[in-house]
Amino acid sequence: MTVTSTPPEADATTFQIADAAPLGRDELDRVDAYWRAANYLSVGQIYLMGNPLLRDPLLPEHVKPRLLGHWGTTPGLNLLYAHLSRIVAARSREVIYVTGPGHGGPGLVANTWLEGTYSEVYPRVSQDASGMGRLFTQFSFPGGIPSHVAPETPGSIHEGGELGYSLSHAYGAALDNPDLVVACVIGDGEAETGPLAASWHSNKFLDPVGDGAVLPILHLNGYKIANPTVLARIGDDELCALLTGYGHQPYLVSGDDPATVHQLLAATLDTVFDEITEIQRAARVDGAIERPRWPMIVLRTPKGWTGPRMVDGVQVEGTWRAHQVPLTAARDDTAHLDALRDWMLSYRPAELFDDAGAPRPGVVDWLPSGDLRMSANPHANGGRYPRDLELPDFRDHAVKTGDTAEATRVLGGWLRDVLIANAENHNFRIVGPDETESNRLGAVLDTTGKAWHARVDEVDQHLDRHGRVMEILSETTCQGWLEGYLLTGRHGLFSCYEAFIHIVDSMFNQHAKWLKTTRHLGWRKPVPSLNYLLTSHVWRQDHNGTSHQDPGFIDHVVNKKAEVIRVYLPPDANTLLSVADHCLRSRDYVNVIVAGKQPAPTWLDMDEAALHCARGLGIWNWASNDDGEPDVVLAAAGDVPTYEILAATDLLRRHLPDLKVRVVNVVDLMRLQPDSEHPHGLPAPDFDAIFTTDRPVIVAYHGYPWLIHRLTYRRTNHHNMHVRGYKEEGTTTTPFDMLVVNDMDRFHLVMDVIDRVPGLGRKAAVLRQQMVDKRAEHRAYVRRTGEDLPEIRDWVWPRTS
Amino acid sequence: MTVTSTPPEADATTFQIADAAPLGRDELDRVDAYWRAANYLSVGQIYLMGNPLLRDPLLPEHVKPRLLGHWGTTPGLNLLYAHLSRIVAARSREVIYVTGPGHGGPGLVANTWLEGTYSEVYPRVSQDASGMGRLFTQFSFPGGIPSHVAPETPGSIHEGGELGYSLSHAYGAALDNPDLVVACVIGDGEAETGPLAASWHSNKFLDPVGDGAVLPILHLNGYKIANPTVLARIGDDELCALLTGYGHQPYLVSGDDPATVHQLLAATLDTVFDEITEIQRAARVDGAIERPRWPMIVLRTPKGWTGPRMVDGVQVEGTWRAHQVPLTAARDDTAHLDALRDWMLSYRPAELFDDAGAPRPGVVDWLPSGDLRMSANPHANGGRYPRDLELPDFRDHAVKTGDTAEATRVLGGWLRDVLIANAENHNFRIVGPDETESNRLGAVLDTTGKAWHARVDEVDQHLDRHGRVMEILSETTCQGWLEGYLLTGRHGLFSCYEAFIHIVDSMFNQHAKWLKTTRHLGWRKPVPSLNYLLTSHVWRQDHNGTSHQDPGFIDHVVNKKAEVIRVYLPPDANTLLSVADHCLRSRDYVNVIVAGKQPAPTWLDMDEAALHCARGLGIWNWASNDDGEPDVVLAAAGDVPTYEILAATDLLRRHLPDLKVRVVNVVDLMRLQPDSEHPHGLPAPDFDAIFTTDRPVIVAYHGYPWLIHRLTYRRTNHHNMHVRGYKEEGTTTTPFDMLVVNDMDRFHLVMDVIDRVPGLGRKAAVLRQQMVDKRAEHRAYVRRTGEDLPEIRDWVWPRTS
Repeated sequence: MTVTSTPPEADATTFQIADAAPLGRDELDRVDAYWRAANYLSVGQIYLMGNPLLRDPLLPEHVKPRLLGHWGTTPGLNLLYAHLSRIVAARSREVIYVTGPGHGGPGLVANTWLEGTYSEVYPRVSQDASGMGRLFTQFSFPGGIPSHVAPETPGSIHEGGELGYSLSHAYGAALDNPDLVVACVIGDGEAETGPLAASWHSNKFLDPVGDGAVLPILHLNGYKIANPTVLARIGDDELCALLTGYGHQPYLVSGDDPATVHQLLAATLDTVFDEITEIQRAARVDGAIERPRWPMIVLRTPKGWTGPRMVDGVQVEGTWRAHQVPLTAARDDTAHLDALRDWMLSYRPAELFDDAGAPRPGVVDWLPSGDLRMSANPHANGGRYPRDLELPDFRDHAVKTGDTAEATRVLGGWLRDVLIANAENHNFRIVGPDETESNRLGAVLDTTGKAWHARVDEVDQHLDRHGRVMEILSETTCQGWLEGYLLTGRHGLFSCYEAFIHIVDSMFNQHAKWLKTTRHLGWRKPVPSLNYLLTSHVWRQDHNGTSHQDPGFIDHVVNKKAEVIRVYLPPDANTLLSVADHCLRSRDYVNVIVAGKQPAPTWLDMDEAALHCARGLGIWNWASNDDGEPDVVLAAAGDVPTYEILAATDLLRRHLPDLKVRVVNVVDLMRLQPDSEHPHGLPAPDFDAIFTTDRPVIVAYHGYPWLIHRLTYRRTNHHNMHVRGYKEEGTTTTPFDMLVVNDMDRFHLVMDVIDRVPGLGRKAAVLRQQMVDKRAEHRAYVRRTGEDLPEIRDWVWPRTS
Repeated sequence: MTVTSTPPEADATTFQIADAAPLGRDELDRVDAYWRAANYLSVGQIYLMGNPLLRDPLLPEHVKPRLLGHWGTTPGLNLLYAHLSRIVAARSREVIYVTGPGHGGPGLVANTWLEGTYSEVYPRVSQDASGMGRLFTQFSFPGGIPSHVAPETPGSIHEGGELGYSLSHAYGAALDNPDLVVACVIGDGEAETGPLAASWHSNKFLDPVGDGAVLPILHLNGYKIANPTVLARIGDDELCALLTGYGHQPYLVSGDDPATVHQLLAATLDTVFDEITEIQRAARVDGAIERPRWPMIVLRTPKGWTGPRMVDGVQVEGTWRAHQVPLTAARDDTAHLDALRDWMLSYRPAELFDDAGAPRPGVVDWLPSGDLRMSANPHANGGRYPRDLELPDFRDHAVKTGDTAEATRVLGGWLRDVLIANAENHNFRIVGPDETESNRLGAVLDTTGKAWHARVDEVDQHLDRHGRVMEILSETTCQGWLEGYLLTGRHGLFSCYEAFIHIVDSMFNQHAKWLKTTRHLGWRKPVPSLNYLLTSHVWRQDHNGTSHQDPGFIDHVVNKKAEVIRVYLPPDANTLLSVADHCLRSRDYVNVIVAGKQPAPTWLDMDEAALHCARGLGIWNWASNDDGEPDVVLAAAGDVPTYEILAATDLLRRHLPDLKVRVVNVVDLMRLQPDSEHPHGLPAPDFDAIFTTDRPVIVAYHGYPWLIHRLTYRRTNHHNMHVRGYKEEGTTTTPFDMLVVNDMDRFHLVMDVIDRVPGLGRKAAVLRQQMVDKRAEHRAYVRRTGEDLPEIRDWVWPRTS
């Protein structure tokens, strides 16, 4: 094999491999036949509901009434699948395939059927004519399979319906999988998105020793739905500068003649896999520590390649018009029907499938087998080495009741122990946008560092080529890394400022939808839950002000299927430990934990905390004086609301000792819903026993108050529930002033009680006026001094038990 | 002046200007004095609440009790402000300043005070000692101003508290402002975010003829909160390749010696502004059409430059430790207090401020004056040439009642006319992620094109250097462009697939918060509303499946202040026209319009439509038979729900003619809330008159059903409201099957009525069973044929009036 490298243009910093013909005649024929078979099966899925092998004349009734699918990206995906399979077979190299242009669903399904995996997973879709018929009909069909690369597609960890996340998913999958290569096809449309653009820099966080490799393949087919793509139109010099600037060694494979492209792509893949092997050898054997220039590929082939060149007099192949269905009227228009037949026959199906409809041996017998098939690789289905985390006893980190603690700092100590306990398993990571220390989880850096392969300067701390904490100032990249890591069977935690987790709202949506679907696919193994720790939260963003104040991620999350959603609001350090332990044990959920990082009291000892968390919500008898017959229920969900509800309770019990107050605390927000709505929902009798059926309930809630109404509107006592929470008032001020401007301060809570409990009399009226005055006093004081009143700062619960 | 260009490294493609000394001694001194003054005032804001001029010994009580601010980025921001002011003054060039690192609030406030603008806007903060005292105390102080560059900061169109949007905002501001240069400081932390990474390619959409210029200044101070930044650690060769790959000509300004950096930065800015002028001249005078290589600057200076080098034995200047407050214990620790004094005195305040505390003439008399001051530029406050849109009569696009129309296609026709009517005003743009034609607004391309300055190939259509439609496959870039365009006083529309608008959830948050604040700042001029058209919506994403199905943006939006939020669900083409007209006339709102693009009936003629939209919701008498005394209310919000409610009504009226059905339609979702909650809220008597106080109300709603409960839970009849909507069930299937799997189909709605209206008797029980059977029949049919039952596809309202 002769490979020489020459720059395609004087200014380009990339190289195109030229004069290469690594494929012998037979191998070329095999790869091409496989590619034609995949293309044939892709077209068949989009169009046909009968006559799959075209052994009968093609009639309108063989064509689906609704043609729903995307052809344009598919031949490129199939080409890459074929050539990557060649590499896997030749080198016994573990590769998984991430499909950025996830709308190329028919392509991936076709390949997995050719590999045999599809029929193993779905036996009815067998490798014969009847199975092929089902394969075709089910695609984008009611009761069938989605049009995108979906959870239903074997070998996939990436839906791709929403563009932008392929590359960060690929990196997440490669972490701690040193023998794995993740081939990641990035559409040139997808490449325009923010999440994708940011994720190129992931290569500064990949460890050539402990991690696998990612091979980005930018598929430059030139068009989106209705426009050219930016990267296809900036010229090779700028494109190569860009990819070089991302830290890659780009290789360009370009063409529209199949035989030429086969040779060029094969030669390039050989080179690229050689380079990956050499980079890893240098790091692992020689101990090289310089950041490698990882190779990547630019594949420039026509959109809708091998499909109809012209339809109704306009060019389709090589344009945006090939994006979805090139022949839209195949069922109604004879010319379209004939063109469809000619198109499918151009792949010469008789050469590809035998009389029974199975792929002929020559087409598929060279493919990798067993687990090496990309569609059957265990990494893409729950992980090759799935194992639960070793979780050290969180009770060892208990804080003494009454002691002040920063909840997340305490959690950080336990997370350090989790890292230590699982160090040899290489299966736990913490991600975050430059906030691990700001969020006071810094103890984890006692035992590991922050992954970093860019330059290190003398002043730096904690940067570590093998670090298990991953920080980049991109919430989408963090989320993508973690999703990829979880979907390949490992565990992790995403710690983030609460307000800015909205940046990944849409990514969360897709992950929740993925989990919802996979939970009902018997062959899909459960994956560890996606755990969010949201801190630096709304009530303690008094220093950064309004832009940093938004507790609405909870509202966003609860729109998704109850079966995959969990929301926890631990009121102190001990409950946070218990909740975190629970979440890190779980699978197939999204767990949202909201907890503060500022010094705060510890309300429950560890046994009480664990019990309270197991119950999810409960009466705090030690704070109540209701003897089972409350005049009012004061409920809190969230750490700051809990503190404030207790401060209000203290005021009430001191000034109105005859008032029977019940204090309720909610850790597991989903307990508020009826059990018909959520698996964690409290049964109605239990709910009524706690919240009563007829007494006023004053709720102090961490987030937007109406969520509590939404969760409880079917409860008997709902009409008596009065909720305080964040109502979008806030700026740079003091912690207590944040409560005052949102009417969730202790004084206002006392007023709320007095306003809602009937018959409290004159003493209560006096107290109410005192509360009004106190709020005014606070405002004057805080504006004069910049601090909260000492009595507010210094308040502690006069615990009686 | 001698300027020569030499590459800093052999491999770099950028150039650093060397041997340049464009500033004479006096000019250098002036610029440096100004910079020192800005730095002094910045430090003062962070620390002091007394003794602003340090004319008395600095005492602990002069120091704020809570030190809340960010020093690290500030000296760099101040340096750039000084030098840009020099350029503005020298060239009378209109420049506005976008502060990516918005946490550098004290810097921007300091500069606007030095320019005099701050005191003009806030007269109490005068340019004297007492004003300086107020300037210092108010910063990050209760009742004062935010710590970030906020709406309160004159000259700002960008908060920057959430990082990532500076560059797209800058491009939005530059569009259609040919005389404006938008200087955009991008923090190297911010540069790691997805939105920022994507927005570099905005330069392919900027027209050197009709648009102004954007000058990106990447401020490479090297550190984030606790980590180095990626771009500071990849080496000059990669960095320059990257920026070249983005299409820029980068210029590097690097150093830590003020005098040297002053000269280098001045020389570089001269060069860069010369280049901008030449690019614009070539395009405007010579008619050059090649995409220009716009210049940009990399400024590499130490984080926290000129601040304390070492604190408590560790390096602060030039490290992440300078990010917030370098001397954290200035009030409690004498060493810190002394260091603070020495730091502030190092700027030699006596040279900078006169006896009265005003800036000395030499410090500020060279600044630009009047509107040319960056902080007073009208572009950054409602626009230099604000004008309402000319809106052609939408009635001209009316669809005949009963006719089938694609609502967004009809809207497209009117939008085309809007473009024509405002063509000469250059003040209307449509943005979208490659979806304008997919969303069936293609008629706009009859009169304008799609902005595009990358290569054009023969096959392309509608690409246009001066196009007013802006499409890039990045929702965040689209949103950023539009926000920048609106905040500088122009108008626009963002059309987007409904599900993927969640990608900008967090950007929406920040914009809504901005509007909430500016509405209460008397000096801020109103800006045109942010208008979303969400289409390709959940009920008609049957072809793309679950990843494309999410109606939750409405839920997200309604968490923000009612005074800025409007949500419209027009049920047909005519109501869509009326709503769109209303939205394009409005200011200071976020308007969310959800409308379909698929063929659908037209229910109301144009007069009825306009009246219905003005009322926001109402009874459709022509569909009702209740004679004022309904047995049941059938309400709909959204186009597909309206269709289905009417189909259910048709079934009920045909099969149970004695049942009194009232049909209600909701266009303006906020009408459902009490008027105490939202300005559009319907007063209780009106609501009760329509929805009754005691009859079952079956609601078919476009989105997640619980939102309706949230909006109506205070209504008298809330306990009778039964809502159907999207419950996260859906895949690739048929349109009607989407309704069936979510129980919002006509058959299920009929069942809901029968289940809730008492005493309907045997006939109703039979009908109910028929409905159950119909659902089963549908399922069987759709799975066999891939189509909906003909009777469902062909159903039309048998309109009686």
